[in-house]
Amino acid sequence: MNKQYWSSRIRDVEPYVPGEQPKDRRYVKLNTNENPYPPSPKVLAAIEAADKDALRLYPDPDCAALRETLAEANGLTPEQVFVGNGSDEILAFCYLAFMDDETPAIFPDITYSFYPVYAAFFGNNVRIVPVREDFTVPMDQLMQDDGTVVLTNPNAPTGIAVGLDVIGELCEKNPNHVVIVDEAYVDFGARSAVPLIEKYENLLVVQTCSKSRSLAGMRIGFAFGNESLIAALNTVKNSVNSYTLDRLALAAAKAAVEDQDYTHDTCMRIANSRETTTGKLRELGFTVLPSSANFIFASHKTVYAGVIFKKLREKGVLVRYFNKPRIDNFLRITIGTPEEMDTLVAAIQEILEEEA
Amino acid sequence: MNKQYWSSRIRDVEPYVPGEQPKDRRYVKLNTNENPYPPSPKVLAAIEAADKDALRLYPDPDCAALRETLAEANGLTPEQVFVGNGSDEILAFCYLAFMDDETPAIFPDITYSFYPVYAAFFGNNVRIVPVREDFTVPMDQLMQDDGTVVLTNPNAPTGIAVGLDVIGELCEKNPNHVVIVDEAYVDFGARSAVPLIEKYENLLVVQTCSKSRSLAGMRIGFAFGNESLIAALNTVKNSVNSYTLDRLALAAAKAAVEDQDYTHDTCMRIANSRETTTGKLRELGFTVLPSSANFIFASHKTVYAGVIFKKLREKGVLVRYFNKPRIDNFLRITIGTPEEMDTLVAAIQEILEEEA
Repeated sequence: MNKQYWSSRIRDVEPYVPGEQPKDRRYVKLNTNENPYPPSPKVLAAIEAADKDALRLYPDPDCAALRETLAEANGLTPEQVFVGNGSDEILAFCYLAFMDDETPAIFPDITYSFYPVYAAFFGNNVRIVPVREDFTVPMDQLMQDDGTVVLTNPNAPTGIAVGLDVIGELCEKNPNHVVIVDEAYVDFGARSAVPLIEKYENLLVVQTCSKSRSLAGMRIGFAFGNESLIAALNTVKNSVNSYTLDRLALAAAKAAVEDQDYTHDTCMRIANSRETTTGKLRELGFTVLPSSANFIFASHKTVYAGVIFKKLREKGVLVRYFNKPRIDNFLRITIGTPEEMDTLVAAIQEILEEEA
Repeated sequence: MNKQYWSSRIRDVEPYVPGEQPKDRRYVKLNTNENPYPPSPKVLAAIEAADKDALRLYPDPDCAALRETLAEANGLTPEQVFVGNGSDEILAFCYLAFMDDETPAIFPDITYSFYPVYAAFFGNNVRIVPVREDFTVPMDQLMQDDGTVVLTNPNAPTGIAVGLDVIGELCEKNPNHVVIVDEAYVDFGARSAVPLIEKYENLLVVQTCSKSRSLAGMRIGFAFGNESLIAALNTVKNSVNSYTLDRLALAAAKAAVEDQDYTHDTCMRIANSRETTTGKLRELGFTVLPSSANFIFASHKTVYAGVIFKKLREKGVLVRYFNKPRIDNFLRITIGTPEEMDTLVAAIQEILEEEA
């Protein structure tokens, strides 16, 4: 590629690689942590009911109606709420808002693989904290008040969650820095840190409609925090793109947040499938980390993860495999419907027999 | 505002201020260059027909179907096409992709007011070229091959367009730098530079669905250029947010691009209203710059623009007023339906009588 016209910033950058969205055939798709259940019927009704002629008009740049709904649902004020084009966009904005030459990003080595990409792209220094052998995060190393902490809770791709006591301590021990808690997967079995926002002005909680609310296809993320942190995110947004959510996404998001029962029910079904699948995989000789998310992270005692990944793909089952140090013998398996998980387990059984 | 946790980048930044999206009452809304006609019926049908259960799945991060449609419509390959969340996002990406410490942004003083915001935010140097007294751009000053040129054609808020000969010369005289032509308003009466892409590898043309395709509410922008320029934009996108267009926006955009007849018809109606309104305002004592866009830029010989702006608002007509040097005696008036323009002209007549 001729890079003659490329800025110095992007010449050597290695972008994030999203999980495959296959077009060649139908797969049992357990590779990108999507929800196996459709969005709430109330979401579909809200999209249906939206004024389509009004699509000629810009959306509300302040997203006021959605922010009010989110504020009410979370016991906050609208000034404590930010919305963006998926939590990925919000996290990118966080790097611009809360990190600079003197404020590095601090995160574990095993976590969402977009974090180091943002840092490299925006030119932020990083301090990377290796997780322990059991994949838990040594929290004391995130408590040195030397940069902006980014913690996924439950963590990805491990699924391991920490309690609110830990989040509170992180905020207390980093009084001069922001603590970003990425709660993309929180609804599947962990506790949200949103109630701690009143207590800690340095706490920013990021959530998404992509997982628990079955709306990955609509690109909606939220952030909750002290008014000053939210104002910082608005400053970034209004320096980049004033309108990042379209009118249908705004309508869908509002309905999704309002239908908490549907979210709760589908999350419970997924959590149940997770536990069932975990049990079955352990019986087949897998180590499965204790997950509070809508995926599990699993390693077989004898068959290499890369082999299982490849053979599953041949059998029409997609899972995620990270060919990276420390986790290259693990598979990240999204929890689908019970039927999809039966297909997965049967396919794995076949593979283990073939490889025996 | 307590900015304790804000990065150095954003502490002093002055964000872009979008045109007002009023909620207090119904206005004749001629302030944000929206299209007065609804989106094509085929766009609404495409949104209706989209698989809503599939909203649980991520959209195609490569936007392949839309890019193929755009390539076909423009005589390009999909590798010469980029799509983003409105042209604002694409322009922001351009600053990251094609400008750095050694490559400033070069643009006129009177142009889209987001350009200096991007530059300030991303830390780019700028060279600002004052337009002439008649608001035309002294093109020779954009031909010094000393930075990335950003030219809106037709220009905003003046509406003045240049021909393809000028764009071609800009590309030739800046062989070592990218020439970005922002064609947000091109369909209302100017010629697109897309056919020049085969000839000039440094030409990037940016367009949008927000104006001529009546889809401001869906956040869709396009960029066309040499494969290397498009690859640079993809590198930025995949370092920030892999999925910036949701599934319904992708479906809407594809249908909008395909229905060229509808776009052409509504643009012609707007161009006709523009000429009629221009004539009427000139009769009332306005100087109206020659516009090729869906707005006009007008100044009255005796009544100050700020006064007309305020009184129009009281009468329920919103136009845009920029309280900035050189243009503080001008109004930017979006072209609405013929009925809306009649209301505008009648309201202005009243104001001129009141102020006489």
